[in-house]
Amino acid sequence: MADSLITLTTDFGTADHLVGTMKGVILNIHPAARIVDINHHVTPFDILDGALSIASASRFFPPRTIHVVVVDPGVGTDRRPLLVSGDQQYFIAPDNGVLSVIFARESCTVRHVTAEHYFLNPISPTFHGRDIFAPVAAWLGKIGQSESFGEEISDYVRFTLPKPKPEGATLKGVILRIDAFGNLVTNLTEADVPAAAIVSGNVQLMVGDRPVVKMVHTFAQGAPGEPVAVIGSTGYLEIAVNRGNAARATGATRGAQVTLTVA
Amino acid sequence: MADSLITLTTDFGTADHLVGTMKGVILNIHPAARIVDINHHVTPFDILDGALSIASASRFFPPRTIHVVVVDPGVGTDRRPLLVSGDQQYFIAPDNGVLSVIFARESCTVRHVTAEHYFLNPISPTFHGRDIFAPVAAWLGKIGQSESFGEEISDYVRFTLPKPKPEGATLKGVILRIDAFGNLVTNLTEADVPAAAIVSGNVQLMVGDRPVVKMVHTFAQGAPGEPVAVIGSTGYLEIAVNRGNAARATGATRGAQVTLTVA
Amino acid sequence: MADSLITLTTDFGTADHLVGTMKGVILNIHPAARIVDINHHVTPFDILDGALSIASASRFFPPRTIHVVVVDPGVGTDRRPLLVSGDQQYFIAPDNGVLSVIFARESCTVRHVTAEHYFLNPISPTFHGRDIFAPVAAWLGKIGQSESFGEEISDYVRFTLPKPKPEGATLKGVILRIDAFGNLVTNLTEADVPAAAIVSGNVQLMVGDRPVVKMVHTFAQGAPGEPVAVIGSTGYLEIAVNRGNAARATGATRGAQVTLTVA
Repeated sequence: MADSLITLTTDFGTADHLVGTMKGVILNIHPAARIVDINHHVTPFDILDGALSIASASRFFPPRTIHVVVVDPGVGTDRRPLLVSGDQQYFIAPDNGVLSVIFARESCTVRHVTAEHYFLNPISPTFHGRDIFAPVAAWLGKIGQSESFGEEISDYVRFTLPKPKPEGATLKGVILRIDAFGNLVTNLTEADVPAAAIVSGNVQLMVGDRPVVKMVHTFAQGAPGEPVAVIGSTGYLEIAVNRGNAARATGATRGAQVTLTVA
Repeated sequence: MADSLITLTTDFGTADHLVGTMKGVILNIHPAARIVDINHHVTPFDILDGALSIASASRFFPPRTIHVVVVDPGVGTDRRPLLVSGDQQYFIAPDNGVLSVIFARESCTVRHVTAEHYFLNPISPTFHGRDIFAPVAAWLGKIGQSESFGEEISDYVRFTLPKPKPEGATLKGVILRIDAFGNLVTNLTEADVPAAAIVSGNVQLMVGDRPVVKMVHTFAQGAPGEPVAVIGSTGYLEIAVNRGNAARATGATRGAQVTLTVA
Repeated sequence: MADSLITLTTDFGTADHLVGTMKGVILNIHPAARIVDINHHVTPFDILDGALSIASASRFFPPRTIHVVVVDPGVGTDRRPLLVSGDQQYFIAPDNGVLSVIFARESCTVRHVTAEHYFLNPISPTFHGRDIFAPVAAWLGKIGQSESFGEEISDYVRFTLPKPKPEGATLKGVILRIDAFGNLVTNLTEADVPAAAIVSGNVQLMVGDRPVVKMVHTFAQGAPGEPVAVIGSTGYLEIAVNRGNAARATGATRGAQVTLTVA
């Protein structure tokens, strides 16, 4: 564990010293750590957005990577800090559901971190990223095993992603998130979209009451301004506009309904 | 010093190649350097904001860390480049007061960097971050001692943070900065706020002519939209809105008056 | 090559997990890699802006640095991935002209990357940064030689930067880009501006039909709000406003004409 890899995912933004300060804490405890930013622009206080972000990125990192996820509207309250051992990696986060997609995907051992001697002292009630999560990650990297951080628990917070609902030949889904390019990421996946129907053009996709005419393989196949549907890089069906912004073009927002009908 | 830690704090933003270029300069001189971004969104040209940012973050970094601070409205003029040895760390910055909070907190040896053979050649009059500050940091990390960079000086620029002024039972402070979340960071500290008075509710806090009713321990204790006061993670009293933006909610700007009255 | 240096330049922004995901891919293949961000805010889909960004920054990095440049409006189409060996460094990018300034400056060997066993599998048609460019960079760093990635080609895409046109005593140039501070970066260089004429004040510079009166050496010499001309840190003549935004002050946009007349 001489050079543990520690990643950071937060809703802190980068317009302040907060993320830099967390890195100082980590390097002060564990000078050989290597720190990688995954995303500091999770939608503020948005557990679902954080859950999707860490799940999308983490699977590309090496075994034994330590992922720190701080999307934490309950900072300073008695929600618990967690240390999770997944299939091959570690996750450190508040117990608020932000690891739900990891819990659904991997076989996890979840610990309630109670070993306060690993925390900074004093603990600011408004910055547990600095005083609890960063030092726990650093000590985990240094020590290399998770047992001493706290007892296993099974009543941790988790939610289930909304699943598409079939109604006859129609599948009703929702927009899970809007990404930084304005692409609408739905909860429909490649498995929901029959390849044969796409080839024959017999699929109708609606965002709200607006039809998306074309299913494409890549953004460049869309005409300028035209909303198209594409299987995105995280496996979800996305509505995009080539060199444009689908959220603005369609007016659709998170949670809006998407329907897929095979004719 | 095989793997010196060098941090960067600037007002360059991240929407350009400037910060990346500084990192190239450092790694070209000192390949083993490890570089950490503290904050590149210091308010442009704002010495006070830069001074607060580096002081908040630096104390969490390991001994011998080299902090580069480039908030430098006078770039290209004859203001001097400084190399400062603080209690345990180094600071490299223009001589314009941006290290004032460090000077007030630590015992410092301040050198005027004159050893031009450490600079890039030629020197662009508009990018000393690249041509002076980055190479000085890299060479300092590589050499491990500061004496050869220039003579000690004592007439460096420093300013004093405004201190709260007592007027009877009232303490008059100001808003020092507005952070990335819209929290209003005042110059009142924990020491200024009597714990007993908080418990009894006998404290009145005004931002301009607007009362802040509630003193809380953590953001989540505020009702939605309600401005609350909290001791922030850097030790200053902050006015915040739970999941909201206190600057927008109160209309208060930097320099606005804050009064604290114990009944 | 134990600790290859890999840089990233993209138009992905930093408000998503995309850049972090690319870093995971690199470190999973080549754990000793050190990754440096040059710029993730290239103007979206803008090949010229990307070409200027990588050319400005790359020359300050050490020999054998591997630069990954993903400004790729044609992602998923049959445009080729390239691996370029320049004078002393490597460049990995789509074949769309984004390395044009490198091609013009350095002696380059250009390979069409066809060795698909280095790619991730499957390849998303919308995220070649993750599935092609990042793994190619990681494997190149690990292997240390470029021959096995594909055959040399000579018909790669390149464009020529517009050159200033002389018309009598007047030189007609254009605004190449507007930087993050609103400075207008022209295609005129130091060589185009006669030092003697500047000293005597006999140079007239126009942005569109608006005169820029003063040639200065550094931003601080401009009066507040006054557009001034300065030789910028990348060698181009720039129009700037001291502590202000020249693009807003002049209303000039990219491609606007700039004329320089020696009286």
